[in-house]
This record gives sequence, C-alpha cells and structure tokens, in this order.
Amino acid sequence: MFREVITTAEMRITADDLNGFATEALRQVGLSEADATLAADVLVTTDTWGVFTHGTKNLRGYVRRLRVGGLLAASQPHVIREGPAWAMVDGGSALAMRTSVFAMRAAMAKARSAGIGFAGVRNSCHFGAAGYYAKLAADEGMIGLAMANDIPSVTVPGAAGPVLGSNPLAYAIPHLPGRPILLDMATSTVAGGKVFAAAVCGQAIPSGWLTDENGQPTTDPNKLTRGGALTPMAGHKGTGLALLIETLAGVLTGAATTWQVVSWSLHDPSLPTGHGAMFIAIDIKAMLPGGEFQARLSRVAEEIRAAPKAQGVERILLPGDLEWERREQALAEGINLPGDAAESLLGLAADLGINPPILR
Amino acid sequence: MFREVITTAEMRITADDLNGFATEALRQVGLSEADATLAADVLVTTDTWGVFTHGTKNLRGYVRRLRVGGLLAASQPHVIREGPAWAMVDGGSALAMRTSVFAMRAAMAKARSAGIGFAGVRNSCHFGAAGYYAKLAADEGMIGLAMANDIPSVTVPGAAGPVLGSNPLAYAIPHLPGRPILLDMATSTVAGGKVFAAAVCGQAIPSGWLTDENGQPTTDPNKLTRGGALTPMAGHKGTGLALLIETLAGVLTGAATTWQVVSWSLHDPSLPTGHGAMFIAIDIKAMLPGGEFQARLSRVAEEIRAAPKAQGVERILLPGDLEWERREQALAEGINLPGDAAESLLGLAADLGINPPILR
Repeated sequence: MFREVITTAEMRITADDLNGFATEALRQVGLSEADATLAADVLVTTDTWGVFTHGTKNLRGYVRRLRVGGLLAASQPHVIREGPAWAMVDGGSALAMRTSVFAMRAAMAKARSAGIGFAGVRNSCHFGAAGYYAKLAADEGMIGLAMANDIPSVTVPGAAGPVLGSNPLAYAIPHLPGRPILLDMATSTVAGGKVFAAAVCGQAIPSGWLTDENGQPTTDPNKLTRGGALTPMAGHKGTGLALLIETLAGVLTGAATTWQVVSWSLHDPSLPTGHGAMFIAIDIKAMLPGGEFQARLSRVAEEIRAAPKAQGVERILLPGDLEWERREQALAEGINLPGDAAESLLGLAADLGINPPILR
Repeated sequence: MFREVITTAEMRITADDLNGFATEALRQVGLSEADATLAADVLVTTDTWGVFTHGTKNLRGYVRRLRVGGLLAASQPHVIREGPAWAMVDGGSALAMRTSVFAMRAAMAKARSAGIGFAGVRNSCHFGAAGYYAKLAADEGMIGLAMANDIPSVTVPGAAGPVLGSNPLAYAIPHLPGRPILLDMATSTVAGGKVFAAAVCGQAIPSGWLTDENGQPTTDPNKLTRGGALTPMAGHKGTGLALLIETLAGVLTGAATTWQVVSWSLHDPSLPTGHGAMFIAIDIKAMLPGGEFQARLSRVAEEIRAAPKAQGVERILLPGDLEWERREQALAEGINLPGDAAESLLGLAADLGINPPILR
C-alpha cells in the first residue's frame, strides 16, 4: 500500500477547492458547518505550509473514526475546571482540531486578563500541526505555545524500542504582519514518515535516526515496524523535552499517557484515542507595551538574518520563513499535493460517495 | 592558564565548609548575610550535583565583578511591573543568584493565586545552573521552568560564527521526596567547556560539536576561540529553542539581547552584563488535586525506568537521577572538586585575603 501511495504523482489543487472538499467531507459525517469550516482551515493551512504529513492527507483517517465512534461529530469541548490563568478542557472525543482551537482560545482569554494563560486538554485525538494553534495566539499579538503527547514511537537513551511519543512542541511569536516566527518540531531526530519513505524506496537511512529491537543504531528503515524506534533529538535532551511535554500535556491534564494513548491511524477506529495537549498564551502588550517588543524582536531577527554566511549559503532562515513562503505560493498558484495525499483525498471521496476534489 | 588549571588534582571539601567559605567571600565584598547565604546555597548545591562548571568555581569571577562595579552588592531586585499572573523584575545588577531566586519566588507567588505564574528578569548576570531555580518550584509542589539568554557562542544553520547564546532551559517536576525530575540543558550540542578541555589536552573533538570561522564542521577544538562556534543541538531545532528563549528571557523582559550581553567571565568586570532570564511556575494542585498528579507521574516514570534495556545497559535514567545520587554522596562523603574549581577557590581566598577553604 505504501508503494502505491508514495509513487503516485503530485497533483495540484487550489486552497479554496481543497477547503471546500474538506468542509464537505466533515459535514457529511455530521460536523456542524462551523466546526467543519474550522477543522478544514487547520488542515488546509497546514498543507499550504508544505507540511503535508499533517494536513488533509489525514482527513480520511479522522473521518473513519468519526463514522465508527472513535471521534464524536456532535461532541463539543468544554472547560471542566479553571482558575484566573488556566483552564482544563475535556475534548469529549470531538475532532482534535475543534478541541485544540477551543483550548488555545481559552488560554488566550486567560492571558488577556492575567498576562499568561494555560489550557490543558484531555480526551482529544491527533491534533495535526501544533504550529497552527500557536499561530492563533500570534494572530492576536500573543506568544503562543502548543504541545501534545502521542503513543510511543521514540526510544530513550539506554532503552530498546519505543518509550515516549514524538511529542511535538510548537511556538509562534508575532513578527512580520501575518508571518509570525513559527517553529513546529517533533522531539524525535526525524519524523517517522521519513523512515517509512526510505523503507518504501528500499534505501538505507543515516545512522542516528533509528535504533533496532535491541536498542542498537541501525540504517535499516524496516526496523521501525519490527521492534525498533526513532531516536530522540539530541539524545537525553530530546528525551527530557518529550518527558516535560508528556507531563504537561498528558499527566497534568488527566489525558491518556504513553501506551494508554490509542494510535489514531493504526488502531481500532471505534476507540477514543485519549490524546492530551496543552496550550500557553503570553500577552506581550501587558508585559512590554508600546511597540517596544516588536522593535526589540526585529533587531534580533535582522541580526540573525544578516549574520556572516557559511560557504555556499545564500540565506539564513528564521523558523517559519519557508512555511510562509510556501503558503504565499500555494495561495497564488495552488497547492502541489504529494501523491499519497491526493490518493487519500480520492479515497475519502469514494468512502463517502461525494464528489472528488478537483485535482490537476 | 587552562593547562595549569585543568591538570590540578581533585580536592575534597565538605558541603558545609564550602558553603561557609562561599558565604564568607560574598560577605567580604558587601553582601548581606541573607544574600550571601542564599547565593552560596545556589552554587554549592550545583557542585553537589556534580555540575562543577556552574558552581563555586565561578565565584571568583562574580566576586571580581562585585569588587569593581559590574555587580552591585547592595542592589536588590525589585518588581517593576506586574499583573495577576506575571511580574517583571529589574535585577539592578545584583548578583544573579539573588535576582533569580527572587524572580522564581515571584512566579511561584503568582502561580499560587492564578495557577500559573511568569516572571521576567532584566539587568541580571550569569545565573549559574538554571536547574536550581526550577527546583525551588518543585520544592513547593509546583512545576518550575527557568531559562536565560547569554552572549552568542552558538551558530545557527547556514551561519559562520556565533549567532545566539547557549541559552539554557531547565525544568523540575515534583516526583520522589526531595528528588524532582530535573533537566538542565544548554541548547548547544555540547557545552563550551568540553571543547576547551579538548583544546587543553590537544585532542580532536567529534565532528558535529563545532564549526570553524567559515561555518564548516571542524574537529579542531582551538577553532572555538578563533572565529568558530558551537553547533546548536539537533540543528534548526536547537536554534529554534534558543530563539524562543532569547525572546522570552531577553526581548520580552527588556534585557540585553545577543551581542548586547556582556560576557560575565571575559569582558571588563566593571560593566553590567545585562543578562535576561525568565521563570515559570505551574501550581499542580490547583489543576489536578488530590495526589492524582503524583500517581499518574509515577506510573509514567516507573514505566520508563522499566522499559526493555539496550544490550549492555543496566539502568534507564530519568533526568536528575544522576544529579540526586551525586548529591547524596557529596553530602555524605564530601564534594570532590575538580582541580580547576579548587584552584579558583584558592585564588579567590588570595584575592580577598581570607582563610582558604579546607581542601583535602
């Protein structure tokens, strides 16, 4: 199946058409117009960034869960406990895009009155690109942070096999208009998708990406599904960050943790996955008023961009530069979906018996 | 000088004696009894963890600044602006240990009423081990985070030479009694001290630690002081984290940023260094009451410790395990100070004309 999927050619679609298709698919399985529109925006924005591993490609899997009960179309996330600067949100197995936007907005509301706001989430699912939620805060002049836990796929120093999730961390910092500084990273050395792709193509992977079932470094990508595990980024440091995220997004929120989390893509789609997440918003204007923050940040940003270049390097990029450039191009010329993503959308249309998306 | 320092033999001292000496040295240059005691505890605790690069070895440099005006012995950190869940602290060039404890306590006070508290710091200096301040929160049942900026020593992908500081991040999570999970990491691949040590010993360093003046990987440790730079941990991910820390601890706080920061150890000791820092405290019991957090965290921690081991591995460590074991041993048997740290203390005693510490 991977072979078939990955070798399919790229196809182009406008962001509007993709948005329309994604919204329609979610409407078909019972989401309200508002919730479907919101979730489609999360996934299509992610595709415009070129982060196709976390965009509409995954919609087919989410829809499958919505059809058989692992996700509940009519469920609404709600605050179960709160204080002056925090809120705990129960996602109620709603689509995680809905729950995550709700929770980040809750953190932002707390930040507006208290300066900083924290929102924890339980009973959620795979939330796609963490960076989307961080960006919501930056859109309103705040610094945003988003983190989530996931089923283990990453080892820890000394272990054989997976121990922690690839627990992502994203942040967004308001900078150029509509273009916050934006980092969205897993705490593994590389994403599992890169290892799968190498396996499909029969290529060896660099040493350092993966360990085998005995915990030894391997260049054989097939080991990932045979008891191996991704390596943590920067060894014990990546493990340490993943454990912090597991604690904040999983332990503290009352969500499922480590092996309690159900895989959103591989396990029984009728089961809730139980993912946890957390969001922080920091209200810049409360802490450093009057445009001073932007002036100070620009000085640092411009200094980094203007740093002496290594031989052969044309530009130094800040986090998000590539994503915003790709988005600009995608909005102007259409999104070039990789073959596996296009294939997934066509499969979804067939699953639901709806018109397929307009791909060229 | 490095040669002489690093080849000096280890010397043993009790924690009490080291504490007494450090307190006396700080009293001699005008600190109050309370401030001297507090700062000595930060530095000696760090030594008991075996983190000698950030312990009492640096006291001689701090005292030099206190004697000639770069640090002000009588200055007291104070809150310059605050809100329900945040405070901005001006360190007023007080010793950074004093300012950092003050700021973390301010964050904890905010967390006690609001659930989460943020404290930013400007006009501080090199604060030693970030983990000490994170631990203060864990001592009172909170999750603590501490970060700081520093003068650039780390490059970014595509650059030649230093661009950002090694900007540390530490966290502490209450776990076993008196032994929080504790991670304290720089955002560079390795600490500069490791590269210096290799230079002194005439040894090559592994590729990946350092880039040369042209931004190319080098195994020559001497390049660090000849236009080279440390590499960011995990490439663009480490750079992204360092930029987040620069933003939160430097830009948002009104502190000096990047090259505006004065080196606490290399530059004119009569100048304030201008470092920034930030602290976050999260009040666990507000968000997940009744011991549930500890039960949930213990399940995750024990699961990690019990994970299948790689060949030849006896134990899987959680962040802080080694530091707490070293501390237990240090308190029972004395601290084995490396030669350069012992040398620095003897030099400090000579500088001040006070009794040298009791080293064996």
